[in-house]
Amino acid sequence: MTESFSHLRVNADRMLAAFNQLASIGATGDGGVSRVTFSEAHIAARKWFRNEIENSELEFRMDGAGNHSAFLNCGIKDAPTLLFGSHLDSVPNGGRFDGALGVMAAFEVLRTIKENRINLKLNLEAIDFTDEEGTHIGLLGSSALAGHLDENQLQNPSGGREKLASGMTRARLSDESMLSAARSKESLVGYLELHIEQGKRLERAGIDIGIVSAIVGYGSYHLSFIGRADHAGSISMEDRLDAGQGASAFTLTVRETVMRDFPNCVANVGKMDFVPGVSNIVPARVDLLLEFRSPDENQLFQLDTALIKLAQAAAEQFSLELLFEPFNKHVPNLMSEDFQKLFKGSCDALGLSSVVLASGALHDAQSLVDLCPIGMIFVPSVGGASHAPREFTKWDDCVNGANVLLQTVLQLAHL
Amino acid sequence: MTESFSHLRVNADRMLAAFNQLASIGATGDGGVSRVTFSEAHIAARKWFRNEIENSELEFRMDGAGNHSAFLNCGIKDAPTLLFGSHLDSVPNGGRFDGALGVMAAFEVLRTIKENRINLKLNLEAIDFTDEEGTHIGLLGSSALAGHLDENQLQNPSGGREKLASGMTRARLSDESMLSAARSKESLVGYLELHIEQGKRLERAGIDIGIVSAIVGYGSYHLSFIGRADHAGSISMEDRLDAGQGASAFTLTVRETVMRDFPNCVANVGKMDFVPGVSNIVPARVDLLLEFRSPDENQLFQLDTALIKLAQAAAEQFSLELLFEPFNKHVPNLMSEDFQKLFKGSCDALGLSSVVLASGALHDAQSLVDLCPIGMIFVPSVGGASHAPREFTKWDDCVNGANVLLQTVLQLAHL
Repeated sequence: MTESFSHLRVNADRMLAAFNQLASIGATGDGGVSRVTFSEAHIAARKWFRNEIENSELEFRMDGAGNHSAFLNCGIKDAPTLLFGSHLDSVPNGGRFDGALGVMAAFEVLRTIKENRINLKLNLEAIDFTDEEGTHIGLLGSSALAGHLDENQLQNPSGGREKLASGMTRARLSDESMLSAARSKESLVGYLELHIEQGKRLERAGIDIGIVSAIVGYGSYHLSFIGRADHAGSISMEDRLDAGQGASAFTLTVRETVMRDFPNCVANVGKMDFVPGVSNIVPARVDLLLEFRSPDENQLFQLDTALIKLAQAAAEQFSLELLFEPFNKHVPNLMSEDFQKLFKGSCDALGLSSVVLASGALHDAQSLVDLCPIGMIFVPSVGGASHAPREFTKWDDCVNGANVLLQTVLQLAHL
Repeated sequence: MTESFSHLRVNADRMLAAFNQLASIGATGDGGVSRVTFSEAHIAARKWFRNEIENSELEFRMDGAGNHSAFLNCGIKDAPTLLFGSHLDSVPNGGRFDGALGVMAAFEVLRTIKENRINLKLNLEAIDFTDEEGTHIGLLGSSALAGHLDENQLQNPSGGREKLASGMTRARLSDESMLSAARSKESLVGYLELHIEQGKRLERAGIDIGIVSAIVGYGSYHLSFIGRADHAGSISMEDRLDAGQGASAFTLTVRETVMRDFPNCVANVGKMDFVPGVSNIVPARVDLLLEFRSPDENQLFQLDTALIKLAQAAAEQFSLELLFEPFNKHVPNLMSEDFQKLFKGSCDALGLSSVVLASGALHDAQSLVDLCPIGMIFVPSVGGASHAPREFTKWDDCVNGANVLLQTVLQLAHL
């Protein structure tokens, strides 16, 4: 390192101006935004970002998956690239920070480095990934970049093929282009992402920066408690085989058990369907959606086993039959320990408090875990809100995150 | 009483033959029947019953509500009528005993009395009430006979007006005829009904006959537990406002409280709807259907109060909001004490054990409670089954019930 840039900070005002312009695109009038992938608002946000990049004297790039990037070439032949960013799409009626902050911070970091004419040994690329939220296919752009996307996913998107096809047309993309976006391992040295926490841990602890150790793994089940339909007026309480009792007992013990025995994990019963579902028939069957997460692969397995045992116990308690079928599973994705150390160093140098924590939510970073080292930092979410208009992070915290990203990028990329 | 007929018994073989013929109409092949009101099978059963009456030398009568009767005139001018019967319609894929046994027993009682040329002081009428099960309007025929049916019910039947209208056409009925079926208080001395228990109390206690004291009253509520939607991966267990926890805790305590504090009552949580109802979002709202029943009006009120308190406590436990709205309420209908005594005397004389109990289910009898004294007896249901093909009552029990009905009718009607 020929010159120290440890004093360098992002231009907080310029970042705020850009952030606010972006937040006005698809604004819902209550502080939130609706920019579902390939909607009019999303296309407008993409176009606005492209213009911003082109006006900044950074190079604009778009790959076959529609990922938009600001690119800064280090000038060294065949140099690999350090990637950092997030996504501009949102859930319907989402917040203005989720994804958007990460892209705006990445873009600001790149502008700061560019205007300071810093000698680099790596190319730098600030990226907006397509459809992180899964309007069509969750983590679409990052999966395509990592070479994970397959034809089958493109034919069976969650919103239906027709919507994806017309969306791709609007964004001038195609199945062929999507599948051509894969990058090589050699081309990347890593991926960094700044994101809001979407939880209350940082806020409650009064800590500035969360250094992510892992994106939790998860499992999910379709569970069915099966009893017997009887006339709810004429059968005594003792004689019922009430599927609702088993489902309810399970739902309560899931929470108690996770809080007591798996304090760093979470579990959710997100849905119950009662059959036949009328007031005067004892529920014959309750179908239930269970999801659970852990940052550790062994623990995820233990949690899985413990939860199924709870379901069996609840079924037995009320003399019910139990059916269960897993429908989704993902091992935890570990963040690079080197990147965690670098983030910690940046925080310390900036005088910011930090804590290591796991991310309960999915992020684009995990798509890239087999492609290159990944690293993430979180900034506090007020009240833990996320995916809602009330989602909010204090601007000082946003700037802190951007400066940690800047300093970490410099440590990796400065010649 | 000029002559004793205490030795008289129904013709069990003839009753069985008729019962089996009826069970073959709309048979579902698994022991059950599907004879929903005005379906082809139901119309065929009605036609068959009419033929049976006409072939028995009893008088066939049909009123404007489509109620079919076998009528035996006592020959005394202006004599009132003792009515007894049940219904031939069934729920979809129901059992062959519910309703059908009561009509076949009433018909057999009348044939037995007719062929024994017994002098009577009352006219006797064995009736099949239209649509007890409520394919269109619950207790339709008995409500029409009691003068409770109104134009609004006919315009808004549960299956839709079109279905009722075309059904009435098939059965040669009309709105006008329906509303003309009301009878006067003076014309009736009472209504008696034999029915299967639809519960396990008689079977478990090994008792032959249940003498019904009341048809339970009921109340029902739409309840909503309201929490907050959060990302189920990123929000900690402690920070959730999980509506599913409140709904589950409530469902469990409803059962516990009723069994402990209201042992002669029942309550049912028949349905829960989770909003948004996906695996990875903490349930923001659960809408729940609650129904409860008691044979006593004061107790019904106490039960109502206790259950709402439980809901409030469950909401409070999980920091949720609670909304509740009653949507159905009916006070208990008391059976005539005189009829209960007569039934008891008949049981004793026949050497049959009996117990007084409340009916948890609705029956046509309750439509008539303001019109004339009502009385009901139950015979045991194997396994308590009802409204299902496995519904079954031993034939000896059916015959016992018919003989109790016969002896009770004779005590009321024998000159």
